[in-house]
Amino acid sequence: MSEKVTIALDAMGGDLAPRMVISGANIARERFPHVHYLIFGRESEITPLLDKMPKLKAVSEIVHTDDIVRSDEKPSIALRSGRNSSMRLAINAVREGEACGVVSAGNTGALMAMAKFVLKTLPGVSRPAIASFFPTMRGETVMLDLGANVSCDADNLIDFAVMGNAFSRSVVGILQPTYGLLNVGSEDMKGHESLHEAAAVLRSAALPGKFVGFIEGDDIAMGSVDVVVTDGFTGNVALKTAEGTAKLINEYIRRTFRSSILAGLGYLLARPAMRKLRKRVDPRRYNGAMFLGLNGITVKSHGGTDSLGFANAIGVAVDMEKHGIIEKIQSDFATLDRTPGKARAATG
Amino acid sequence: MSEKVTIALDAMGGDLAPRMVISGANIARERFPHVHYLIFGRESEITPLLDKMPKLKAVSEIVHTDDIVRSDEKPSIALRSGRNSSMRLAINAVREGEACGVVSAGNTGALMAMAKFVLKTLPGVSRPAIASFFPTMRGETVMLDLGANVSCDADNLIDFAVMGNAFSRSVVGILQPTYGLLNVGSEDMKGHESLHEAAAVLRSAALPGKFVGFIEGDDIAMGSVDVVVTDGFTGNVALKTAEGTAKLINEYIRRTFRSSILAGLGYLLARPAMRKLRKRVDPRRYNGAMFLGLNGITVKSHGGTDSLGFANAIGVAVDMEKHGIIEKIQSDFATLDRTPGKARAATG
Repeated sequence: MSEKVTIALDAMGGDLAPRMVISGANIARERFPHVHYLIFGRESEITPLLDKMPKLKAVSEIVHTDDIVRSDEKPSIALRSGRNSSMRLAINAVREGEACGVVSAGNTGALMAMAKFVLKTLPGVSRPAIASFFPTMRGETVMLDLGANVSCDADNLIDFAVMGNAFSRSVVGILQPTYGLLNVGSEDMKGHESLHEAAAVLRSAALPGKFVGFIEGDDIAMGSVDVVVTDGFTGNVALKTAEGTAKLINEYIRRTFRSSILAGLGYLLARPAMRKLRKRVDPRRYNGAMFLGLNGITVKSHGGTDSLGFANAIGVAVDMEKHGIIEKIQSDFATLDRTPGKARAATG
Repeated sequence: MSEKVTIALDAMGGDLAPRMVISGANIARERFPHVHYLIFGRESEITPLLDKMPKLKAVSEIVHTDDIVRSDEKPSIALRSGRNSSMRLAINAVREGEACGVVSAGNTGALMAMAKFVLKTLPGVSRPAIASFFPTMRGETVMLDLGANVSCDADNLIDFAVMGNAFSRSVVGILQPTYGLLNVGSEDMKGHESLHEAAAVLRSAALPGKFVGFIEGDDIAMGSVDVVVTDGFTGNVALKTAEGTAKLINEYIRRTFRSSILAGLGYLLARPAMRKLRKRVDPRRYNGAMFLGLNGITVKSHGGTDSLGFANAIGVAVDMEKHGIIEKIQSDFATLDRTPGKARAATG
C-alpha cells in the first residue's frame, strides 16, 4: 500500500463545477484508494453532493470559501483580487504541505499566475510550461509548452526540453526518451533563430535519451518522438488544430454511416469495435494538463470536461506525485550544461 | 468557349516526375479543353511520355533543358545556379507572357525564391505568401501563410489578410468572406503584439466581408471563417499537424475495422460510403498551394503527389487565371487603408 496522499481540489472551476469535481473525485477514489481530498469551495453546494457519496466523504475535508475566480477573469486581476478564491486556497494548501498537488478546471491563466506566485518556479527553470499527452501512431507523446509562454527564447525552449524529458522518464516511464524541437522543416537552417540556438545546446546537453533535432507538425501524431518541445503559441495552435481536425473527421464518419441504409447496417455490425475506438480517442482520456517547472504539482483540467475527465486529471496529479516529478526536474536542472555544442560554434 | 490559356509546367519537380506531371496534364486536358501547356525539362524523358498521349501532345510544346533544381537544394543556391533549370525557365515563361501561370512540384523554397526574383512582388505587398484550401465542417477555408515567411510583423499579416480576402472573393466566389487572425485565444489581450497591431488595422480597413478578430486552432476545421490569416511558421505547423492527425485517425479506423470479424463485415457493407468519404478527404483534392502577392500565377504541387494531385494543382492555376486574381489583389492593395482603428488608438 502507498502512503497517504492528499490532493487539493478547486471545487468551483469548470463549466459543470462543483458537481463534476465531486463526482470526478468519487471515480478517482475507486482508482486510488490511498488518496485523500481537500476540497475548496462553497460548502453549501459541496456538502449535499458529498452526502450522496459517503465513501468519498470519508476521505475528504471541505474548506469553505465563497470566492470564485471567473473563467473570463484576467490573470493579473485574479492574482490581486482572488486571494480567498477556491483556486488560490487550493494552491496555498500545496505550499503549506497540506496537499501534495492541486487540480483545477478553472481559468488557465489565473491558475498559472497564482501557482507561479504561490509555489514559485524551481531553481534554474526560466519559466514553467504547460504539458499534455497526445495520442500517436506509436502510443503517447508529451508536448510542451501548450500556451503558458506566448514568446519563447532559446533558454525557455531548452528548459522545456529538460522538463519534458524528466517527465517522460519518470511519469511515462521511458528510460531513454527521444525529443525534438517543433519547426517548419527538419533541415538545420529552417525556422527561428531561437530554435537554432536551443538545438545547439540540446545537441551537447547530454540529457538521457536522444535529441533528434527538428521535427515537423505531422511528427506529433506520427509519434516520431516521445517529447515535442515548442513555444506556447505554436503548441497551443497545434493542440487546438489537432483537436479540431479530429472532431471534423469524426463528423465526416458520422455522416458517412448515415448516408445509406447499407452503411447504417455496416455501422451496427462495427459498433462494438467503433466504441472501442471512441474510447481510445476520447478527449477525456487525455484530460489533465501538467504545469511543469513549479515547486508543487499543479494540474489543469479542461473546463468543459465531465466527472470522468476530471477523475483522469486527478490521476495525472497522483501519477506525478508517485514518480517524484518535482525532485526529478530539480536534479536535472542542477546538472544541466548550457554550453552550446558544435553546431553553435560553427555558426558563431 | 474560353480564350486559349497557356500554363507552364516544370516537368522535373516532384518525386514521381516527369511521369506524374505529364499524366497530370493529360487529366487536366480533359477538364480544361482550352488550356495549352509549355513543358520544361528533359526532352528525352518527356517525349516518350507525350507520344503515348497524342491529345495532350497536340496542345503541348516541350522546351528542353537538362538542368534540375534538387529537392534538397538551398533556395539561395538554386537562385544563383539554377538559371537554366526547368523550374526557372517555366517561371521565366510567365514573365515573358508566354504562359499565364506556372505549376511545379519541386523544391518549395527554390520556387518561391525564383518566382519572387523573376515575377516580382505586386506593388504594396510586403511579402508574398503561400495559401491553400482546408476542408472544414462548412465547406472549404483558405489559410495563409503556410511557410513562406517564418517571422511576420503586423504589416505582413495585414497583407496576407487582404490577399486571402481577394482570393476568397474571386477564386472561391464568396462575395463577403469572413476572415480572422489565428491566435491562442479570442480575447483582445492574447498573443503576440504583431497580432494586436494587425487586428487594429483590419478592424477599420473596410475590406469586403467581415473581420471576426482572433480565432483559435480548432476554428480552422470548424470552418469558423472563410480566410485564416497567420504567420508562415504557425501556419506550416498547423497544416502539418492537421495532416498528421487526419492520417492518425485514418489508421485508427483501419485498425478498428480489422479488429473483429463483425467489424470487417460492417466495413464491407459501409464500403461504398467509406469510399465516398475517402474521396472527400483525399489530400490530392486539396493539392496545389497558391503563391499570392506575386505578379504572376504560381502554384506549388505537393512533391509526393501523383498525376491526379498534379492535375488538381493545374486546376488551381487555371482557376486563378480565370478569376483574374492578380488584378484583384492589385486593386485591393491600391485602395487599402492602413490607419489603425479604435483598438490601436485605445492601447497607444
